[in-house]
Amino acid sequence: MSVYGASVTKLIEAFEQLPSIGHKSAERLAFFLMHRSEADVEAFAEAIVSARRGLKFCTVCQNMSDKDVCDVCSNTARDTSLICVVEDPRDVLAMERSREFRGLYHVLHGAISPMNGVGPDDLRIAELLARLNEGVTEVIVATNPNVEGEATAMYLARLIKPLGIKVTRIAHGVPVGGDLEYADDVTLAMALQHRVTL
Amino acid sequence: MSVYGASVTKLIEAFEQLPSIGHKSAERLAFFLMHRSEADVEAFAEAIVSARRGLKFCTVCQNMSDKDVCDVCSNTARDTSLICVVEDPRDVLAMERSREFRGLYHVLHGAISPMNGVGPDDLRIAELLARLNEGVTEVIVATNPNVEGEATAMYLARLIKPLGIKVTRIAHGVPVGGDLEYADDVTLAMALQHRVTL
Repeated sequence: MSVYGASVTKLIEAFEQLPSIGHKSAERLAFFLMHRSEADVEAFAEAIVSARRGLKFCTVCQNMSDKDVCDVCSNTARDTSLICVVEDPRDVLAMERSREFRGLYHVLHGAISPMNGVGPDDLRIAELLARLNEGVTEVIVATNPNVEGEATAMYLARLIKPLGIKVTRIAHGVPVGGDLEYADDVTLAMALQHRVTL
Repeated sequence: MSVYGASVTKLIEAFEQLPSIGHKSAERLAFFLMHRSEADVEAFAEAIVSARRGLKFCTVCQNMSDKDVCDVCSNTARDTSLICVVEDPRDVLAMERSREFRGLYHVLHGAISPMNGVGPDDLRIAELLARLNEGVTEVIVATNPNVEGEATAMYLARLIKPLGIKVTRIAHGVPVGGDLEYADDVTLAMALQHRVTL
């Protein structure tokens, strides 16, 4: 029943298309905007359109950036012999927060997933290979610890190892601050296998 | 740190202004849109702007509508002697879902809340009073069962009763399907006070 009128109903439907937004949340978002001034709402819509229009990727690491070469890649203090491969721009931010990594990144924009029709050609793998002749000694594969991420890691290892470059994978184990009781079997098995000497 | 570039960062900030959207959700929404085609993103922004621009209120009940008189108010099968007063357009939908009410609605677009600087003049109360000379016999106040909703109900009762029109309030009590154990003291007290003979 369209009690709100067609255009508001259409907006609610548009919000419902967004990830993790259900019908109730979509209603709340639409009504919130309907109660703001027309100028505010236009500014919001403009922020969306201009972000998408201005969307550029760093020509080196393929991360989202508004520059041709992003801040990380153009930072001369970073270790250019190390490349950390991640699936998503958000993963770069997560790695940066850890303050543990001082090398460069490469963003694949996804992971190999035959179920979702994503093959190696849909990822920025060619761009990664093109970077591997500049004194790179190690590629750390930090794709997600799930089926797709592992498959992508395997694929990259097979591709890069023959070039004489070390390929490593981030460690699996129990999360810091977590409770052993709640760790799943596979994680615990991994944590045991990769135990380190103290 | 603006690793994503200024315009994407600005978009994330814009999403964070929306209700119940935190930083992580704002990032997820922004990135979802950045992965869609430019045409899709423009259509989404257009849905927002056109909903706000086309926003009209029913001249009778003040609910959101794209017509001058909404579907409920123009429905001749409804009982025009009964007006149910609610705070929000969503409450109209909730009442309609109950299939219990066959009268008309009046949407206040808020509740009296001195804490938030909302007084009677900020609500559609004048429009309600203007409707009360058309054979209306009862006004049911269905504002929310919280401090602001109760204050608004009291205010309306004081205003409308002198006109010789019955003013009623929706019943407070334990929710159907709920557990007595989890009902709060005030609700339980209300449920006892307003008990009905079986």
